[in-house]
Amino acid sequence: MYSREVEALLSKKGIAPGDAIRVSIGSKKFEGTLLPRPEFGDQGVLVLKLKNGYNVGLKLGAGSKIEKLEHAKESFAFPRVKLEKRENLPDVAIVATGGTIESKVDYMTGGVHMLVEPEELLAQVPEILDIANFKLVSPMRIASEDMLYQDWQSIARATAKALSDSHGVIITHGTDTMHYTAAALSFMLNGINGPVVLTGAQRSGDRGSSDAYMNLLCAAHLAAKGNVAEVGVCMHASSSDNYCNFIRGTKVRKMHTTKRDAFRPINGTPIARIDAGGNIEYMGEHRRVQNGKEKLRVESGYEPKVALVKFYPNSDPEIVDFYIGKRYKGIIIEGTGMGHVAVSPSDERYSWLGHIKRAVDAGVVVGMTSQTLNGRVNANVYRNLRLISGAGAIYCEDMLPEVALVKLGWLLGNHKRAEAAKMLNRNIAGEITERTEVDWF
Amino acid sequence: MYSREVEALLSKKGIAPGDAIRVSIGSKKFEGTLLPRPEFGDQGVLVLKLKNGYNVGLKLGAGSKIEKLEHAKESFAFPRVKLEKRENLPDVAIVATGGTIESKVDYMTGGVHMLVEPEELLAQVPEILDIANFKLVSPMRIASEDMLYQDWQSIARATAKALSDSHGVIITHGTDTMHYTAAALSFMLNGINGPVVLTGAQRSGDRGSSDAYMNLLCAAHLAAKGNVAEVGVCMHASSSDNYCNFIRGTKVRKMHTTKRDAFRPINGTPIARIDAGGNIEYMGEHRRVQNGKEKLRVESGYEPKVALVKFYPNSDPEIVDFYIGKRYKGIIIEGTGMGHVAVSPSDERYSWLGHIKRAVDAGVVVGMTSQTLNGRVNANVYRNLRLISGAGAIYCEDMLPEVALVKLGWLLGNHKRAEAAKMLNRNIAGEITERTEVDWF
Repeated sequence: MYSREVEALLSKKGIAPGDAIRVSIGSKKFEGTLLPRPEFGDQGVLVLKLKNGYNVGLKLGAGSKIEKLEHAKESFAFPRVKLEKRENLPDVAIVATGGTIESKVDYMTGGVHMLVEPEELLAQVPEILDIANFKLVSPMRIASEDMLYQDWQSIARATAKALSDSHGVIITHGTDTMHYTAAALSFMLNGINGPVVLTGAQRSGDRGSSDAYMNLLCAAHLAAKGNVAEVGVCMHASSSDNYCNFIRGTKVRKMHTTKRDAFRPINGTPIARIDAGGNIEYMGEHRRVQNGKEKLRVESGYEPKVALVKFYPNSDPEIVDFYIGKRYKGIIIEGTGMGHVAVSPSDERYSWLGHIKRAVDAGVVVGMTSQTLNGRVNANVYRNLRLISGAGAIYCEDMLPEVALVKLGWLLGNHKRAEAAKMLNRNIAGEITERTEVDWF
Repeated sequence: MYSREVEALLSKKGIAPGDAIRVSIGSKKFEGTLLPRPEFGDQGVLVLKLKNGYNVGLKLGAGSKIEKLEHAKESFAFPRVKLEKRENLPDVAIVATGGTIESKVDYMTGGVHMLVEPEELLAQVPEILDIANFKLVSPMRIASEDMLYQDWQSIARATAKALSDSHGVIITHGTDTMHYTAAALSFMLNGINGPVVLTGAQRSGDRGSSDAYMNLLCAAHLAAKGNVAEVGVCMHASSSDNYCNFIRGTKVRKMHTTKRDAFRPINGTPIARIDAGGNIEYMGEHRRVQNGKEKLRVESGYEPKVALVKFYPNSDPEIVDFYIGKRYKGIIIEGTGMGHVAVSPSDERYSWLGHIKRAVDAGVVVGMTSQTLNGRVNANVYRNLRLISGAGAIYCEDMLPEVALVKLGWLLGNHKRAEAAKMLNRNIAGEITERTEVDWF
């Protein structure tokens, strides 16, 4: 809802979000589509999507006029942009996979639907065409909660192909599982030579509060000229539109359902911060752009029979046997604190120890992580921890549970069991840091 | 390890942590037990546990001397304190349940063991005896990863009994599942008349960097004179020893494996901050101390057949059928983003929709939360969300997954199924907030 005054005015004129309208303020006239009320900021300001793709906020005064031009169309379309080669610009590929960034609000139902054409996403940021020459491939167009490992494999192959003649690659992706895909690509793409930048939007581009514009712009700057050869996530760093973070694909997690700065580094610092003007400030150690020194290899094997199991009080340890019975090859446990499960509770049926041992004996690789997310597991401090470790669970250092899951699936898809077990708690793609800095949390 | 210089000196004298030593600096002499190196701060400073229970840091200079008095005993004991009634002090009960705060380092193995007597925990903070008259009960002494709902019930009963003749209650508890217990007590204790303060330690009290001292002191001040009748967690608010937060039991989560300020409010602000001098600053809305207006009721029913299931890419939805088969009564799903699971992935075997519907049809209460932890789930934004909600999953607002689990077990233990389902996403004990403040994240 807009403010009461604005709503009353709109209602009098029979105008609703999605309608094409003309607003006259003094001698200035603005034509465009009325967007739904912005969630933050002044709710007395009308937000209009202009025909050039920009959103404009209009404060109505005493002499302002509003006219309705046309009823809302169910299928609001961004204009399509023309991709024309310009000699002096670097090449960037966009691998468009779906998600909110390729979506728009359906003004009839209030829900969100996919755009008709993936190219429409560039129209949300017309000035992006001054940053690079873009080519666009779209191996799939799905909501990220529907992503499977087979999709990760397609994205890995499309990205590797695109990197062969681009400085960098932008992967547009739904935000829900973006960090899982980022982890998968971090392991699957070995020896990349340029930036692989996942980005998306928490709110669709036709809404007043959308983050699509800023995220795409920063991702484009980084993919066009970033001196970094890593996979990472580029999204809003704060709730204001001042800059984005580029966070390593194995150290990032979506930490809020809706906020634009939902993606946070866990157990690490961002690799870089990028502003909309194209300034890139590098912040931590990272791999630089490689010049033909290393050949890009795609190792896209993946064993889907890996499970992430969360421990909690009174959790049923027979869940472990369920996975043994289904011939799973790996289990990552999200334990408490430094990597605990119940070992000697007063009711023996809730002890996990025997079940973990049985899984290990059955050839299942069992890894231990922590549901605290921040910090490092450690098998050596408490007696219970030493018992769990003694049963064969591999303590996964400061690796995120979700990353440990993806890593284990990838390891088992490309290596023999014993080798996979050995590599689980050794760093491959920045997922494990040797020493934890005090000020990360 | 201490610094190289200190280690060399200790080694020359045959001194190791745990040994009783005498340190002479100028004309001053200190006798006590050498503690292991502090993890933070100057590693050239020796940390000694004096006989009065205090730790002291000693910087060695040119004229300093060290003598070994006695070898380490395997069983280092804090002195026991005498609990003597003093007329002008309020009454506070301590319900001691175990955990690191009742533990000490075993200097032989480097591991952590329980103290011999729970009373020893007061000896870690001798000045606590000036704050209140304490009585101490210990219904169990276990590591918190071994806590079961039966233990929550015992703690609830012991707390209710203690509250009948105390201003407040301190519950000492292992940190791993402290927030689960805090949630359980928030629901089980209905109409409490004073503060119920859970506290613990991330590092045992005989270590240089222990948080036991400060946490116990702040908890004691709050339990002795706090004008708050809620269940909450009182732990370090920052990595320095300046103050503790008191965080509502349904809005708190352990967010770091080892740091002293691991406990953080999620989707809310702390109720109060307390410093070691006893200053209490109230920060948000809270329930005040009641004067006989309401009678404390213990509703300790609990249905243990409730599960917390985490969704992730390629997660096997047959996990839902596993719980249906075991006649579970409730399932909380930790979905992605605003409460997603896979609905239409390219491989139909990974779709959760039919499984959720089957569970609901079988009479299982299914609740949806988010693994982002921060923010609110919402069934109305995306088509997939409306499908999941349409299958019967109850969207649990801004409730933490762990709290939703405990709430559902409690609801099903005290109410009929239909009633429990209706109450799941309605606020009972501060676990759901109506509006999310922008600056909480």
